[in-house]
Amino acid sequence: MENLAFLGLGRMGRAMAANLLAAGHSVTVWNRTRQRCDELVGKGARAAESPAEAVQSADAILYSLPDERAIGEVVFGWAGVLEGVRAGQLAIDLSTVHPDVSRRQKEAYTAEGVDFLDAPVFGSQPEAAAGGLWIVVGGDRAAYDRAAPIFRPLSVSTHYMGCTGQGAAMGLIGSLIVALQIQALGEGLVLARKAGLNLDEVLEVLALPDFRSPIFSGMGPGIVRRDFQAVFSLEHLHKDVDQVARLAEQLLVPVPASAAVREQVKAAVANGWGAENASALVKLLERQANVVLGEERRGPVGD
Amino acid sequence: MENLAFLGLGRMGRAMAANLLAAGHSVTVWNRTRQRCDELVGKGARAAESPAEAVQSADAILYSLPDERAIGEVVFGWAGVLEGVRAGQLAIDLSTVHPDVSRRQKEAYTAEGVDFLDAPVFGSQPEAAAGGLWIVVGGDRAAYDRAAPIFRPLSVSTHYMGCTGQGAAMGLIGSLIVALQIQALGEGLVLARKAGLNLDEVLEVLALPDFRSPIFSGMGPGIVRRDFQAVFSLEHLHKDVDQVARLAEQLLVPVPASAAVREQVKAAVANGWGAENASALVKLLERQANVVLGEERRGPVGD
Amino acid sequence: MENLAFLGLGRMGRAMAANLLAAGHSVTVWNRTRQRCDELVGKGARAAESPAEAVQSADAILYSLPDERAIGEVVFGWAGVLEGVRAGQLAIDLSTVHPDVSRRQKEAYTAEGVDFLDAPVFGSQPEAAAGGLWIVVGGDRAAYDRAAPIFRPLSVSTHYMGCTGQGAAMGLIGSLIVALQIQALGEGLVLARKAGLNLDEVLEVLALPDFRSPIFSGMGPGIVRRDFQAVFSLEHLHKDVDQVARLAEQLLVPVPASAAVREQVKAAVANGWGAENASALVKLLERQANVVLGEERRGPVGD
Amino acid sequence: MENLAFLGLGRMGRAMAANLLAAGHSVTVWNRTRQRCDELVGKGARAAESPAEAVQSADAILYSLPDERAIGEVVFGWAGVLEGVRAGQLAIDLSTVHPDVSRRQKEAYTAEGVDFLDAPVFGSQPEAAAGGLWIVVGGDRAAYDRAAPIFRPLSVSTHYMGCTGQGAAMGLIGSLIVALQIQALGEGLVLARKAGLNLDEVLEVLALPDFRSPIFSGMGPGIVRRDFQAVFSLEHLHKDVDQVARLAEQLLVPVPASAAVREQVKAAVANGWGAENASALVKLLERQANVVLGEERRGPVGD
Repeated sequence: MENLAFLGLGRMGRAMAANLLAAGHSVTVWNRTRQRCDELVGKGARAAESPAEAVQSADAILYSLPDERAIGEVVFGWAGVLEGVRAGQLAIDLSTVHPDVSRRQKEAYTAEGVDFLDAPVFGSQPEAAAGGLWIVVGGDRAAYDRAAPIFRPLSVSTHYMGCTGQGAAMGLIGSLIVALQIQALGEGLVLARKAGLNLDEVLEVLALPDFRSPIFSGMGPGIVRRDFQAVFSLEHLHKDVDQVARLAEQLLVPVPASAAVREQVKAAVANGWGAENASALVKLLERQANVVLGEERRGPVGD
Repeated sequence: MENLAFLGLGRMGRAMAANLLAAGHSVTVWNRTRQRCDELVGKGARAAESPAEAVQSADAILYSLPDERAIGEVVFGWAGVLEGVRAGQLAIDLSTVHPDVSRRQKEAYTAEGVDFLDAPVFGSQPEAAAGGLWIVVGGDRAAYDRAAPIFRPLSVSTHYMGCTGQGAAMGLIGSLIVALQIQALGEGLVLARKAGLNLDEVLEVLALPDFRSPIFSGMGPGIVRRDFQAVFSLEHLHKDVDQVARLAEQLLVPVPASAAVREQVKAAVANGWGAENASALVKLLERQANVVLGEERRGPVGD
Repeated sequence: MENLAFLGLGRMGRAMAANLLAAGHSVTVWNRTRQRCDELVGKGARAAESPAEAVQSADAILYSLPDERAIGEVVFGWAGVLEGVRAGQLAIDLSTVHPDVSRRQKEAYTAEGVDFLDAPVFGSQPEAAAGGLWIVVGGDRAAYDRAAPIFRPLSVSTHYMGCTGQGAAMGLIGSLIVALQIQALGEGLVLARKAGLNLDEVLEVLALPDFRSPIFSGMGPGIVRRDFQAVFSLEHLHKDVDQVARLAEQLLVPVPASAAVREQVKAAVANGWGAENASALVKLLERQANVVLGEERRGPVGD
Repeated sequence: MENLAFLGLGRMGRAMAANLLAAGHSVTVWNRTRQRCDELVGKGARAAESPAEAVQSADAILYSLPDERAIGEVVFGWAGVLEGVRAGQLAIDLSTVHPDVSRRQKEAYTAEGVDFLDAPVFGSQPEAAAGGLWIVVGGDRAAYDRAAPIFRPLSVSTHYMGCTGQGAAMGLIGSLIVALQIQALGEGLVLARKAGLNLDEVLEVLALPDFRSPIFSGMGPGIVRRDFQAVFSLEHLHKDVDQVARLAEQLLVPVPASAAVREQVKAAVANGWGAENASALVKLLERQANVVLGEERRGPVGD
């Protein structure tokens, strides 16, 4: 069992840190707002005053942060991770960020003799809580192997993608696919609604092996019931598709469907739905089509 | 067991007719080019000279035709189905067409005292051969119930969607989703390729529960191996997305991502890939990004 | 001076018929709702009871109709033009329709010994009233030459584009460009608004020779003043972009930007703005961006 | 007459510096590759060894640089502008960049007591050579007034847009509109070509007042003659549309048509046409539609 530092205790981070504790690791936690540490302290974690302090005696350092800016502060900032590290440690970035951010971290850690892995996770809070995430990892193979016992209580599956940044790239490609699935579901449901179909029946058909996607089964019923409580927030999706766009730009890859979806996500956030579930993307389609899903019992619409 | 007529013996039609024969039905077949009947005659079918002749003594009439024009000829044309029908029969259109085409047929059949179901199928030739299709059906509930023993040897699942045209609408919504899945796979793979990822590894990740889609697992390996032999042809997808666009236009439903995909499908067909598998859609993305998937062992590309 | 029949007295038709009368032609008019003939009768026109009657003694027959369906009724329908024509006449379709509609008419007229021109017009009601339209014409060159004295009081410029359908094709290409210009103006203005720019100043810049487009100068001020009274209605634009899409589909021409605009136009119509001016397309962008143009004096928005 | 420093002697910069010299200003020039200074030295300019040296004795400092990175080096870098400035000077950035880049400069200059204007120019090399540019300016009104005699020999028109960054924003909005105009021209021409129209005739129609745009008249003939020599390069357009996308993202403005165009521009650059004229964007449409504009005399295509 190892000494771990875990930084960033959002929905995902808290669940992961709890699983690491439960697996017998010794965990020091830190979060920008201190209260979020309390629950974990109650489970045996130690709370640190700063990232630098948190990492000092750790064998491995993990963090799950919302975006590049947060990584800038927590890793590179004042009293940040880099001020506390020492040679021989292993740093693991579990955030979904642009590969360039991974490469900048790799460079900084290497100068300190610290190993680094970019290791974004797939799955939402429920999977995190159940230790059922999927982790895609970039970095040195040896560091990946060293991380195996740490990943084990977090995930049902880990994939080694290649050198630094390639875990991050895979993370963004996953986001691209999720975004397109949500949009596909939305376009299909709005079309179905205006064609007079029963949406529960439609969702049953979309659960057939020919279409089946965890997005459809995971988000479809909520859309029809008008339940947009965030499991994976639209804001989060927005941030991800923006990074996908940046990566596609950098690599000169045209992504016409993703580009169309990105404009929708942006508009949905502009309309104030960022804190709702990513499935709230369909609200924009509803507005554009002047129809509301999930109210079909109230009679015909728009004619 | 019933007397059936089966018209239209393409890849899908032949497989379905064979399953109906194997289930013990008596089947009269017709196809525009006569030779395609021979194999089924060898299995016990009777071949007719025209649609009108084929349907004369049938209890139920089934057809699987490529598009609206073919239905125009086979059903409404000279020596077509409508010239041979008599009251009490049941006609089942297994093609994927616009709901308006279903409604026009319904009207014509009703005038002859014939029941009608629009019943597009999901699945490709392998599923058709294995009796493993999914059928979504519109029309009178009684006619749907009457068709049950006919659908049984063809399918693993049938769904009653509502009145005439709603089976067809569900069929098109399915096509919309398939088209977006293929495009999502293509955009993801091209991005992955230019990011230097190993595509076999990427396909493994896309097989995780968070993404898993039959399109990804069904088409991904073929793309990477450059196998574009048609199971479901790009031309077919093209025809379907055009009908989706027509339906969305008619119902005033904006479908921005589908619209972007449609332009890609159109361009892929304009480039002469229509007879290849629908997965050949990614060739256009490859051209746009100036990269070829599936050749990654040959070294870096474009830089 | 000739005997003319003019069918279809919408905003454009009335203005054109009046100009033909003013130029000294003898004009028989017809419109589905009879009252619209009165004003022209007051100016010396004769009113007919049906298209067939209107065209009987005409040398040339002109019509300006909203869409394919109207042409179906007025030209091909009961008591329609084709029932009244005789050999040697010239028929001129001034509507913006798909080239196939032109070709179908050409065939029918040829069977009757009647010449035919497809001759869509560019310009809105004010240009029509001032005899300042632009006409793009397809058909036989000889028929085009014969039509010159008829076009003269209507237009400042006529262009011979080639055989039947090529006038219509040019008409649709014009519509494509107009639609993209309107969308460009909208995207630019919404971006400008959110960037805090003064929109009157922006419109001045867009009037510079580098950007200058009659769409910008014609529609920009109205948008900022919130004046969406129809000169050229959004519904009309919607019908046109749908025909553009059909033509592009038929010719296998990918039009990604036009396709994106089409979805916007569709959504704007679905939101009930079809009877407003085509510039009301920007209302959709405003909604998507959650901002209103033309209210900038009320203080900052969305932040 | 003033002492001016002019940094960045690309196509545009050389022409502008020459006009400032011709107007009687005393000009010190600098360029990363020294040879480009020679021509201007021949016209009376003085060449400096570094940006810092060039600006030392200037009243006003102008620069026209390709992108943010160049501004980073020339302004903020080693021996850069900021190392040579002194209080009371005026710095004018003539580049097309993101407003954030303007704001960062403003802040740095203010700390040195230097005035700053963001002043992107519209027009290409010919307009620059003729002193016929349009300049859109952000910054303090007093600084704008002070710059008037400097702008005069460069431009036919200057517009004061508001505070720092608003000139830059207007510059990007102009780019958005230019990009959409080019794409509209391309989509129209490819459609026209496949519809069998004569493209010279089409360009004449597009020169009518209803459509007329300097883009159509400026780029149309070159496209048809296959002349893609850069006046305004595709690479330049690419850089601009990427900044437009960033600005739209930041301000949460959905720009669906621009987003579609951006993917096209990206693909055109990925295909290696970046150094050609921006009109080479149509080559991508040609490929997608499998047709070549400007070869219409060689007979039918693609069928």
